[in-house]
Amino acid sequence: MASLRIREAKEGDCADILRLVRELAEYEKLSDQVTISEEALRADGFGENPFYHCLVAEILPAPGELQGPCAVGYGLYYFVYSTWKGRSIYLEDIYVTPEYRGQGIGSKIITKVAEVALDKGCSQFRLAVLDWNKRAMDLYKALGAQDLTEAEGWHSFRFEGEAMREMAGR
Amino acid sequence: MASLRIREAKEGDCADILRLVRELAEYEKLSDQVTISEEALRADGFGENPFYHCLVAEILPAPGELQGPCAVGYGLYYFVYSTWKGRSIYLEDIYVTPEYRGQGIGSKIITKVAEVALDKGCSQFRLAVLDWNKRAMDLYKALGAQDLTEAEGWHSFRFEGEAMREMAGR
Repeated sequence: MASLRIREAKEGDCADILRLVRELAEYEKLSDQVTISEEALRADGFGENPFYHCLVAEILPAPGELQGPCAVGYGLYYFVYSTWKGRSIYLEDIYVTPEYRGQGIGSKIITKVAEVALDKGCSQFRLAVLDWNKRAMDLYKALGAQDLTEAEGWHSFRFEGEAMREMAGR
Repeated sequence: MASLRIREAKEGDCADILRLVRELAEYEKLSDQVTISEEALRADGFGENPFYHCLVAEILPAPGELQGPCAVGYGLYYFVYSTWKGRSIYLEDIYVTPEYRGQGIGSKIITKVAEVALDKGCSQFRLAVLDWNKRAMDLYKALGAQDLTEAEGWHSFRFEGEAMREMAGR
């Protein structure tokens, strides 16, 4: 019987992480926005001062099976800062590949992020979800999260390169 | 004639930063959520691996005036990571005290953040704003930002300590 393991990502996981990043963006119908490369993921996540941390969910083959472990989900996070509460975690991405949904893998990734947050003295962790992704929203609420956009009216804004260069006069 | 300067915060600015953090939370009608201390701001922003960076906007006295510079605004940011675009900045707070609004100080802080982002190889910066704060939303849009909650439907979620401890079984 195959079993699940959730572990910290290693540099050699970057090809799998990129595959899953692209699957997630496709699921979110926003895959035209993905321009990142495996090289950037390697350089930015596994140097001296990593820009992010990543958990990988993998299926381990049963004893005697020939294939190796298979990455079926990931949670990518980093440390942020709240001027209200101090040190916090932001879970940038969480994803489980379709054929492995409904087995609690997403909840296990979120629980692991909560454990990291508590171990690192963080008082909260945040994430973002698309309003039509009711399955994800229901899971986060069931696990105790609050929808701040609904409760308090927070909107996310983004400045991209062109707007930044125009402001900076470059 | 008094003049404006925007500069990087020093550890000695933390009392001013905390005063402005509290003013902003009051303006946002969410000041009951602020539990941070000046000591935490000092420890977390000015150690070896700072959790945040901060810009301070201050009014410099005219020559011959007796009082020192006065902090009237701030922008607090940190580096985050987009799995679509790579290195990015998140502007956690931007605030200008009421009597100094309408003079372009907010735009100058945002422009400075854009310059930092470009200098550090970031392809975007993000921030969050409350839906009733039309003045701020209009400014960000005028400067070229996109409202991602409106355009794509992103909702912000947050897990707090109690939910995290329950998940982690602590």
